Amino acid sequence: MAIELFYWPGLQGRGEFVRLALEEAGIEYIEVGAGAESEGRGVPAITHWLDGEDVQRPPFAPPFIKVGDRVIGQTALILMWIGEHYGLAPKDEPGRLWTHQIQLTIADAVVEAHESHHPVSAGLYYEDQRAEAQRRAIDFREQRIPKFLRWFETLLARNPAGPEWLVGDALTYADLSLFQLVEGLSYSYPKATARALAECPKVVALHAHVGNRPRIRAYLHSGRRIAFSEGGIFRSYPELDA
Amino acid sequence: MAIELFYWPGLQGRGEFVRLALEEAGIEYIEVGAGAESEGRGVPAITHWLDGEDVQRPPFAPPFIKVGDRVIGQTALILMWIGEHYGLAPKDEPGRLWTHQIQLTIADAVVEAHESHHPVSAGLYYEDQRAEAQRRAIDFREQRIPKFLRWFETLLARNPAGPEWLVGDALTYADLSLFQLVEGLSYSYPKATARALAECPKVVALHAHVGNRPRIRAYLHSGRRIAFSEGGIFRSYPELDA
Repeated sequence: MAIELFYWPGLQGRGEFVRLALEEAGIEYIEVGAGAESEGRGVPAITHWLDGEDVQRPPFAPPFIKVGDRVIGQTALILMWIGEHYGLAPKDEPGRLWTHQIQLTIADAVVEAHESHHPVSAGLYYEDQRAEAQRRAIDFREQRIPKFLRWFETLLARNPAGPEWLVGDALTYADLSLFQLVEGLSYSYPKATARALAECPKVVALHAHVGNRPRIRAYLHSGRRIAFSEGGIFRSYPELDA
Repeated sequence: MAIELFYWPGLQGRGEFVRLALEEAGIEYIEVGAGAESEGRGVPAITHWLDGEDVQRPPFAPPFIKVGDRVIGQTALILMWIGEHYGLAPKDEPGRLWTHQIQLTIADAVVEAHESHHPVSAGLYYEDQRAEAQRRAIDFREQRIPKFLRWFETLLARNPAGPEWLVGDALTYADLSLFQLVEGLSYSYPKATARALAECPKVVALHAHVGNRPRIRAYLHSGRRIAFSEGGIFRSYPELDA
């Protein structure tokens, strides 16, 4: 049975972290938001689960997935579920929790990446908060990007199984998400991210390893990989980078 | 064996969500940050786990807990762990995941509460980002507080076991955290929160139920409950409320 993925069509956004796990695990999935309304898909199928009065456990926001009659929301939780059911997480409890802890920290970095261009309101255009974004972006690119990337570098350096993956000796969903974080930061803040990555060779190597996984490589070159854009979480506003 | 809680001394902050779970579960715990440096506690004991070169799995930030030789970070993960090991979470997988999904949404609300007074940088004083906070707070108090609280109201209304608790017929760690979120929002944005709560009677009732639990009530009246302050996540800046 295919997993249904609910996310706003045409955007990588937080949905992309889920897509990478689904692709790497080789799970058949349906992009509900991109489907036709005449087939019960498209945006109305998303808003049904958010706003429908007959939904017992409505997610607060996309992405969410539907597996049989279950709906699971919150990116990090979706990944934990996929990881533990499809072999993208360690089997031991300490390893599972540590993987989730890393994922939650990646989620914090993603929030900050979005806040960096929308520090006033997600409901206003960037152009209406450009002055505030100019100030916020300085802190994000000078302090936060290096701090987050250095933390991942440290985890890789201290992994007793070796520096290839974040947890143990096998790829987990957290590695896929770190790949996407590096992709997104490199798109949004190419200068600042390159500067920070110059001191994080293990993160750079992980990014390359993930991108060369056969399924991920095929995905990235397929039509399913949506391009970054200024409607997503990671946006390119050159005046914010330096 | 007591659980060690690591959080900056003198602040409720994110540590408070953990404290409420520890108190309700009746778990013996040590506030390491508030202890004496001469006994190996205090702030150096916190920074050891964050920055010590011999720490294999360093948390990114407090709060974190130490249980035996394990260190667990990220508030929502700590609560999931406490909840599942100490009877503050459902036993069935769908219920466990749903509780965590709610908790992660509470965590999102907590981030936004902090951003509302620190939209430029957590590293700058409020006074240095007051203009930006004035704009951010409008969105937070007019759009986000009502949206979050209405979502919790909906969950309570649709709980098939009744509207007393968020998940099933027993208190979970998510209920404790919603109590704290209401406490914090009521302190920070008393006018806006009262307006939103007027339409969320079930959230108001849950807040009262939690506050009247014998252990929570005893805790709130004890010296262990730190007062809200303008060093924490929830801050009272009357010019931001309306």
